[in-house]
Amino acid sequence: MRVLGIDPGLRITGYGCLEGDGVRAAVVEAGVVRLMPKSGPTPSVEARLLELDRDLAEMMERLRPDLVAVEALFAHYDHPATAVKMAHARGVILLAARRAGVELAEITPAEVKRAVTGSGRAQKAQMQESVRALLGIREPLDPPDVADALGIAMAAAARSTMPR
Amino acid sequence: MRVLGIDPGLRITGYGCLEGDGVRAAVVEAGVVRLMPKSGPTPSVEARLLELDRDLAEMMERLRPDLVAVEALFAHYDHPATAVKMAHARGVILLAARRAGVELAEITPAEVKRAVTGSGRAQKAQMQESVRALLGIREPLDPPDVADALGIAMAAAARSTMPR
Repeated sequence: MRVLGIDPGLRITGYGCLEGDGVRAAVVEAGVVRLMPKSGPTPSVEARLLELDRDLAEMMERLRPDLVAVEALFAHYDHPATAVKMAHARGVILLAARRAGVELAEITPAEVKRAVTGSGRAQKAQMQESVRALLGIREPLDPPDVADALGIAMAAAARSTMPR
Repeated sequence: MRVLGIDPGLRITGYGCLEGDGVRAAVVEAGVVRLMPKSGPTPSVEARLLELDRDLAEMMERLRPDLVAVEALFAHYDHPATAVKMAHARGVILLAARRAGVELAEITPAEVKRAVTGSGRAQKAQMQESVRALLGIREPLDPPDVADALGIAMAAAARSTMPR
């Protein structure tokens, strides 16, 4: 199966698309949608959301995932201001998946850590290293949003292919 | 000018469209988009966002507002779980306005209260009564999301037509 993991943000939205199951998976494509230029005036939130919406529509068309995976919500309530901004992007991502008729999976951070490191309590840096090692990626994944998105996709693939 | 005020929610999104300026305004149309059926199974968040997106696209086409007005964000951080859910709908609303090429205004709750009651510290019920009185609406506005959306539209109209 093909899983597209997405890590929403109004500055950078990371994505990682995998083909395979929870045990073996190969990267189809991974990267980021940058919604803030590195210099120049800050685009409005609505301009960034429109850019994200267009990029996502194009991505769904090109990658044709069987499943879109995002982090479950309850992980985000420690920093309300950040979480509320992120949720604008998350809403547009859920919309894009539904519009494309793709099923959605919500993955907890503990599931990502368990799928990637074997422990639900791994540190973030360790998780990102494991994602690279498991997928056989040599170069560092920069920005870290790419590794986060790939980790979400791996956990979703593992959950979907697990015997019930 | 024509202003469309929107009060986002994943259960009910209120809207109110006014024609006029801050002093005199007439209701073009007001109501709610209900995203949860009164009975039956709860639709997924993504299904509700797609419904909202379609209704908004149709609304922009039909009402052709010059300005879309929503509440500014900082009002919502007291209840993070609710705010994060609301922000999914808010993101889809900002997207719909931008896609339709309509300018956006963000209005603070104090601006709404001042525009509608003359005081920035009015109670919510008093605000909703004033909206009805000022717009010459006889019947109660139910659910209150309609009055909230009309209040936001009135404040945005008042701000836009004020001499600088």
